[in-house]
Amino acid sequence: MSSFGQVFRVTTYGESHCKSVGCIVEGVPPGLSLTEEDIQPQLTRRRPGQSKLSTPRNEKDRVEIQSGTEFGRTLGTPIGMLVKNEDQRPHDYGDMDDFPRPSHADFTYIEKYGIKASSGGGRSSARETIGRVAAGAIADKFLQQACGVEIVAFVSQIGSVRMNRDPFDPKFLQLLNTITREQVDATGPIRCPDASVAGAMVEEIERHRGDKDSIGGVVTCVVRNVPTGLGEPCFDKLEAKLAHAMLSIPASKGFEIGSGFAGVALPGSKHNDPFFFDEDSNRLRTRTNNSGGVQGGISNGEHIYFSVPFKSAATISQAQATATYAGADGVLAAKGRHDPSVTPRATPIVEAMTALVLADAFLLQKAREAARAIVS
Amino acid sequence: MSSFGQVFRVTTYGESHCKSVGCIVEGVPPGLSLTEEDIQPQLTRRRPGQSKLSTPRNEKDRVEIQSGTEFGRTLGTPIGMLVKNEDQRPHDYGDMDDFPRPSHADFTYIEKYGIKASSGGGRSSARETIGRVAAGAIADKFLQQACGVEIVAFVSQIGSVRMNRDPFDPKFLQLLNTITREQVDATGPIRCPDASVAGAMVEEIERHRGDKDSIGGVVTCVVRNVPTGLGEPCFDKLEAKLAHAMLSIPASKGFEIGSGFAGVALPGSKHNDPFFFDEDSNRLRTRTNNSGGVQGGISNGEHIYFSVPFKSAATISQAQATATYAGADGVLAAKGRHDPSVTPRATPIVEAMTALVLADAFLLQKAREAARAIVS
Amino acid sequence: MSSFGQVFRVTTYGESHCKSVGCIVEGVPPGLSLTEEDIQPQLTRRRPGQSKLSTPRNEKDRVEIQSGTEFGRTLGTPIGMLVKNEDQRPHDYGDMDDFPRPSHADFTYIEKYGIKASSGGGRSSARETIGRVAAGAIADKFLQQACGVEIVAFVSQIGSVRMNRDPFDPKFLQLLNTITREQVDATGPIRCPDASVAGAMVEEIERHRGDKDSIGGVVTCVVRNVPTGLGEPCFDKLEAKLAHAMLSIPASKGFEIGSGFAGVALPGSKHNDPFFFDEDSNRLRTRTNNSGGVQGGISNGEHIYFSVPFKSAATISQAQATATYAGADGVLAAKGRHDPSVTPRATPIVEAMTALVLADAFLLQKAREAARAIVS
Amino acid sequence: MSSFGQVFRVTTYGESHCKSVGCIVEGVPPGLSLTEEDIQPQLTRRRPGQSKLSTPRNEKDRVEIQSGTEFGRTLGTPIGMLVKNEDQRPHDYGDMDDFPRPSHADFTYIEKYGIKASSGGGRSSARETIGRVAAGAIADKFLQQACGVEIVAFVSQIGSVRMNRDPFDPKFLQLLNTITREQVDATGPIRCPDASVAGAMVEEIERHRGDKDSIGGVVTCVVRNVPTGLGEPCFDKLEAKLAHAMLSIPASKGFEIGSGFAGVALPGSKHNDPFFFDEDSNRLRTRTNNSGGVQGGISNGEHIYFSVPFKSAATISQAQATATYAGADGVLAAKGRHDPSVTPRATPIVEAMTALVLADAFLLQKAREAARAIVS
Repeated sequence: MSSFGQVFRVTTYGESHCKSVGCIVEGVPPGLSLTEEDIQPQLTRRRPGQSKLSTPRNEKDRVEIQSGTEFGRTLGTPIGMLVKNEDQRPHDYGDMDDFPRPSHADFTYIEKYGIKASSGGGRSSARETIGRVAAGAIADKFLQQACGVEIVAFVSQIGSVRMNRDPFDPKFLQLLNTITREQVDATGPIRCPDASVAGAMVEEIERHRGDKDSIGGVVTCVVRNVPTGLGEPCFDKLEAKLAHAMLSIPASKGFEIGSGFAGVALPGSKHNDPFFFDEDSNRLRTRTNNSGGVQGGISNGEHIYFSVPFKSAATISQAQATATYAGADGVLAAKGRHDPSVTPRATPIVEAMTALVLADAFLLQKAREAARAIVS
Repeated sequence: MSSFGQVFRVTTYGESHCKSVGCIVEGVPPGLSLTEEDIQPQLTRRRPGQSKLSTPRNEKDRVEIQSGTEFGRTLGTPIGMLVKNEDQRPHDYGDMDDFPRPSHADFTYIEKYGIKASSGGGRSSARETIGRVAAGAIADKFLQQACGVEIVAFVSQIGSVRMNRDPFDPKFLQLLNTITREQVDATGPIRCPDASVAGAMVEEIERHRGDKDSIGGVVTCVVRNVPTGLGEPCFDKLEAKLAHAMLSIPASKGFEIGSGFAGVALPGSKHNDPFFFDEDSNRLRTRTNNSGGVQGGISNGEHIYFSVPFKSAATISQAQATATYAGADGVLAAKGRHDPSVTPRATPIVEAMTALVLADAFLLQKAREAARAIVS
Repeated sequence: MSSFGQVFRVTTYGESHCKSVGCIVEGVPPGLSLTEEDIQPQLTRRRPGQSKLSTPRNEKDRVEIQSGTEFGRTLGTPIGMLVKNEDQRPHDYGDMDDFPRPSHADFTYIEKYGIKASSGGGRSSARETIGRVAAGAIADKFLQQACGVEIVAFVSQIGSVRMNRDPFDPKFLQLLNTITREQVDATGPIRCPDASVAGAMVEEIERHRGDKDSIGGVVTCVVRNVPTGLGEPCFDKLEAKLAHAMLSIPASKGFEIGSGFAGVALPGSKHNDPFFFDEDSNRLRTRTNNSGGVQGGISNGEHIYFSVPFKSAATISQAQATATYAGADGVLAAKGRHDPSVTPRATPIVEAMTALVLADAFLLQKAREAARAIVS
Repeated sequence: MSSFGQVFRVTTYGESHCKSVGCIVEGVPPGLSLTEEDIQPQLTRRRPGQSKLSTPRNEKDRVEIQSGTEFGRTLGTPIGMLVKNEDQRPHDYGDMDDFPRPSHADFTYIEKYGIKASSGGGRSSARETIGRVAAGAIADKFLQQACGVEIVAFVSQIGSVRMNRDPFDPKFLQLLNTITREQVDATGPIRCPDASVAGAMVEEIERHRGDKDSIGGVVTCVVRNVPTGLGEPCFDKLEAKLAHAMLSIPASKGFEIGSGFAGVALPGSKHNDPFFFDEDSNRLRTRTNNSGGVQGGISNGEHIYFSVPFKSAATISQAQATATYAGADGVLAAKGRHDPSVTPRATPIVEAMTALVLADAFLLQKAREAARAIVS
């Protein structure tokens, strides 16, 4: 469905060429200072056309709050938000109308719904993510105020160019301790904080653009200052909700948290994160963080970090041998210019979905804590 | 929470040492032939103590259907099921009572709930998965009848011993075409269908058992004969629900579908799965399957395949330097014998969760198809 | 929360004086013919200012579909809809700013949210129902196409002027068999199909208008051609969902279905609805319909009929002795002119909520029927 | 479905003649003192066979907690509970096997599920309510500790014998201020606290028993000490959830809160509840309580009171002219002895469902309050 979250909950609408895209956000705490200025920056970071690295369509993507605030404060009622689609033309896709684009959602949408949106992938459009980013910006602001939560996503791989994200390497872990969105953006549109590889990543993208091709990448995200106790056993473990959130982002193909796939080769004696008493925070902490900030589905107060692979964009202008809807073999070359890499633009989406997961878990845990305080 | 699924829905209860563990399954189609004999085999496959590869506690795990069937047919009402805990002793854990086990859920549960289950990890126990496996067996049977769905999970890695699971290697893809649960079980408790590495995997486990240590692994799962059209955009994409399901299994640390993390290095021109008209099935199919059976969050009729890493078990009898709940440094050595690798036993759990995701998606799509048939 | 329904699901946003009110409707079957013309009529029926019987503010309430349709057909994706608030002035309420209006939601909203919407009751405004009516119009159209469902609500009581709605009187039951929305509207804005009392109802309203007072009423609703089998035991019985829906409408204070409160005085031997085989419909039907079309929470194919009392509107311009927020005794006289009776305008809202309940139940049952057909 | 509640949530299973009936309760605050002794009393009050007023089948209905507690304290994990069915005989119903019982759920269940439970009404059995009552007892205990909430239901009408429940009569309101469960039970199994009519009610029931008939009744319920702010606009208004809960109880046909149906005849100037500052509670209260403790869907701190009509039981041993499943006219006389009035036994069920609604609303509001405290 088009809703996400249990208590802090977003519902989105909108396709690529309809009147507007938008969302309704329920469960926003009342009294939160909130205007469009809090939301626009992440929408702008998500926007294509920010540089030569991405698609040249110059969408403006100005968010308009419809409801739920007065005089810059939230009322506790649902926040309606929308972004007008400036490009409402139903058609610009040439013989894509005859062909389901390989690895795009054209074929599966028609199988599911029995009707074809005239203009490209309909709901599978990247514009669908606008509502998520707008909602996530609210969740993000709340979490910052609530406990100083910092959510920072960055590009850790483009094609085969990979920055160090080895969970067992202290240098990588040190980067997770300090990296900020400002630092990420300072690296330019590539959003890779590792200067030693950022240039090669840009080249990788430009090379594929030149080939009328596309290339995938990996986004890594760290969350700092998460309170302990977030996540709902057993099905709604915090990592399960994060995985759900990440795999719901278009083009994502995976998720790993903490030591992830690499961690399986470590024996328990090395993989286990031993405890120590931390004088600074006056509580138990772990010496290592192979768990990635969650144990048994519940946050343990250490940094949460995870990575998400995004496949190469399906729409390329290079000719592809494929078949038409009618089953005839043919060659498809998509008209227009297309974004050779969605990965850098995925960073604010990853941040938004992370914020939505955490805000929901935070509110649920607050209810439990309040109840626990009453009965014990 | 302890519920999973929207229309085909399971709710579970139970900790390691309470009276019983069990579940309620809603949305089971009426008229399905169903007895305990349909459910027990997967529970037995999940059970520890099946061989020297796993823990020697000889649990019986006999499922008892409480409601929802008569004369071997489902009534359409909720199926209540339970498995009695034969070992209801609250204590066998020695000084684990003073120590939160590193990388286990002891610490986070007490942070979340403010109360410590006297006997180990409480709800984070592996026994919690019994309800899932029982419910999954019903979903599995329904899906088999509905469209011949075949769900087969196997061990593809133990520690650093890895079988070929390269999504670009035709041999691996061929194995996915044909592998059965019978073949998986024929390889013995290791459940790795690649004879060339299965022996080394067993040795890897035995070596860690000898070291009073544990080791992780990866489970790979393939689903065949999935109808097109399953999965609910945009937040409940089929891969998002699968990722949610997999990361909700204890000890799992990730998920990748289709080409996964490896796929990001392929340009769109190579990664895209071109279409062709398949005479046999009389519909469009794709020549490659880097997508792993889903596009835009919706099944495309190709095999769904994915992998899930499981970290090494947290509870080991080797001594670990850590800290007590009270913050004092100390050394913990867990009493008793512990399963050095949960990965082989995770295969039926992965199958169960997969079946639950698909049965739910199947019913939702059937509602849509029925409605669509009316209005178009 | 602001969502209603499980599979056919509406989420609404909007207060009285924000930019717009609107909704997102999920689960709308793809391929349904749908334009604003299908939705506007019920919004217009809901609109105040239609006659001297209701408030003179002349709101236009033009619905704009934002997403989910192309070329007049639904895509199966969420339908976003909005109605701009023409009156976005935050203030017109005089000393209502100091006083919580008696029996309005001013006090409870501030207790709940800790913040006061500057302009009246905020989310408790009747404008909140616009999103419901828009969504309900879609559900209504679908149900008509699916099985000819006819939902007709009318005013059966204003103040103490009551038309015959005796569930044991054949004349009333006969009216339920045939009454149409056109007939209801033909009676003028009072929407009472019983000419013998409609005039007295109008007088009752006018008398209270003259007194700067308000008066309550009862809306009765009948649903014809409901298929058997709708409603989900045990908590989501069809009557339970209807009751939930009706009590969620502002100012409603109750619900009764079939024989309702009056029925308790009949012994089972008289209250039970005996079966007979109906040649026309070629199935079992009941000779009487004291059950009101549901038995055990499931529709039995007979007409569903129920009544909903609406209290007199809380906002009156007559002076009322009450207290300020600060606790000081005082006299409140609301500025402006206020609708003396919301009951006639509630009829399309009752119809909308009824349609939403039935569309959701219909889709859920279709999923079950499809699954049942597979396994039996 | 068989789940109720969003955060404090019960899921039930069980039919009349299966192995057991039971439930899983999620969201129970950790650290609550809880044993079977807290739950059994309400189950015993619900139990048939308590006196000559109800059915003579002597069910024992002993609840067994399966999970979620240790040493008499809740762990915060799901509470599994079950009650064994002592009477698991599938048959005692004679030619009821050929006849759908008029106004029972036999016909609609077979229409919905396409399969007939051999033994009576299956899931529509009154035994289904056991899980609700067990779960409600936990909610009740929590609410008592949290804020001294008192929920008391009583019989206010049997057949045409009606005690004073006039919402405008100070005597009735005075009774609501003080009535306790002990006082209700002191009146014997009839559970009507008005001695002036209780005897006539008993006679009414006995007369119908003598006639092999049944008779309906009304249960009225009051809730005291509800904190302000409970209830979630706009669809999950507190009264909407209460109505949903009440109409989900077998045999209920309606709901009215506060002045209910009678209130519509009062003009706003009389119906509105004026505010005053109450020195005792140091907050605004209302002089009258026609609203029944809710305004705009949110509790205002006054007593919540409502009434629920229960129709006469469908199963009677008197002969009824009806038709068989096959459509043949015939006469059905149910074998065995049947409860002539379910109304007195419905009181603990009404209390349980009320407690479930309030506990859920309470937890949701606690989450909001915690978040509000952070941001304002």
